[in-house]
Amino acid sequence: MTQVPVFDFVVTTPLRMLGNLDAILGKAQAAIADGKLTEEQVLKAKLAPDMFDFTRQVQLVTDFAKSPAARLAGVDVPKFPDEETTLAALRDRVGRVADFVRGFQPAQFEGAAERQVTIPLRDRTLEMQGDQYLLSFAQPNFYFHYTTAYALLRHLGLDIGKRDFIGG
Amino acid sequence: MTQVPVFDFVVTTPLRMLGNLDAILGKAQAAIADGKLTEEQVLKAKLAPDMFDFTRQVQLVTDFAKSPAARLAGVDVPKFPDEETTLAALRDRVGRVADFVRGFQPAQFEGAAERQVTIPLRDRTLEMQGDQYLLSFAQPNFYFHYTTAYALLRHLGLDIGKRDFIGG
Repeated sequence: MTQVPVFDFVVTTPLRMLGNLDAILGKAQAAIADGKLTEEQVLKAKLAPDMFDFTRQVQLVTDFAKSPAARLAGVDVPKFPDEETTLAALRDRVGRVADFVRGFQPAQFEGAAERQVTIPLRDRTLEMQGDQYLLSFAQPNFYFHYTTAYALLRHLGLDIGKRDFIGG
Repeated sequence: MTQVPVFDFVVTTPLRMLGNLDAILGKAQAAIADGKLTEEQVLKAKLAPDMFDFTRQVQLVTDFAKSPAARLAGVDVPKFPDEETTLAALRDRVGRVADFVRGFQPAQFEGAAERQVTIPLRDRTLEMQGDQYLLSFAQPNFYFHYTTAYALLRHLGLDIGKRDFIGG
């Protein structure tokens, strides 16, 4: 085959990465329990004053996991209010999004590559064909926020490495 | 279609991201020319003492662009010595890798999803089927190092945003 199923890109791999993210969040909780970090430090962490903090980065990782699966299957994107204030609540959100993503079947992505996708942004609306949306928007954004969340924890000195990020 | 061509994941999208990375490197050079940063600061930047510095992150972005295209097409991965010591040299490497990736044709990825891929790591060798290699290894690593390079520049105060990362 010269092609790979959309299902693998929006279900199989994101599920694996959400599992890795959950484990990394667990390591952050353990470091807090050990007194190495405070929860506030983690939740509010940034690399620059004008960037989203750690909490928002994790919220965005989950948004860029649930939206692509939903949009490419042609179902409504579930809305999660962005109001988590603890790592436990962020892990719960990661788990709920994983449950949502796990519910999709390969057959739901019939025609996904040609499906017209509408993406509401803060200041405009993007219209894209499914394959372009996956390649140029959904995937880069998912990994952008996942890596940024990871990088913030590295910057705080958490003992994690790329194998935590990629998974076993 | 429920599938997307391997070509789009290992040629089209990486080429776009390498172009974005080149433009970001150009912005770093401009900030250095303006006296806002030094080249040494950029090249040696890290978020934690035990992580690869900016130079190595950019080298790794290019490695995770040239290797997947080559391995999934069944051609030799070109070796680039890791000896860049300037941003100009890093941009040159990004350009050479883009030229290499641009040379592939869709037909070269016939059977890519089932192709057995061998990945030499520092301490072991991984064997994977092509689709697994793309999904679980090549893509996460490419975005991991690209985002980390971006994050290091954000941390240094460079005036860049996610639109620079994702592209137009």
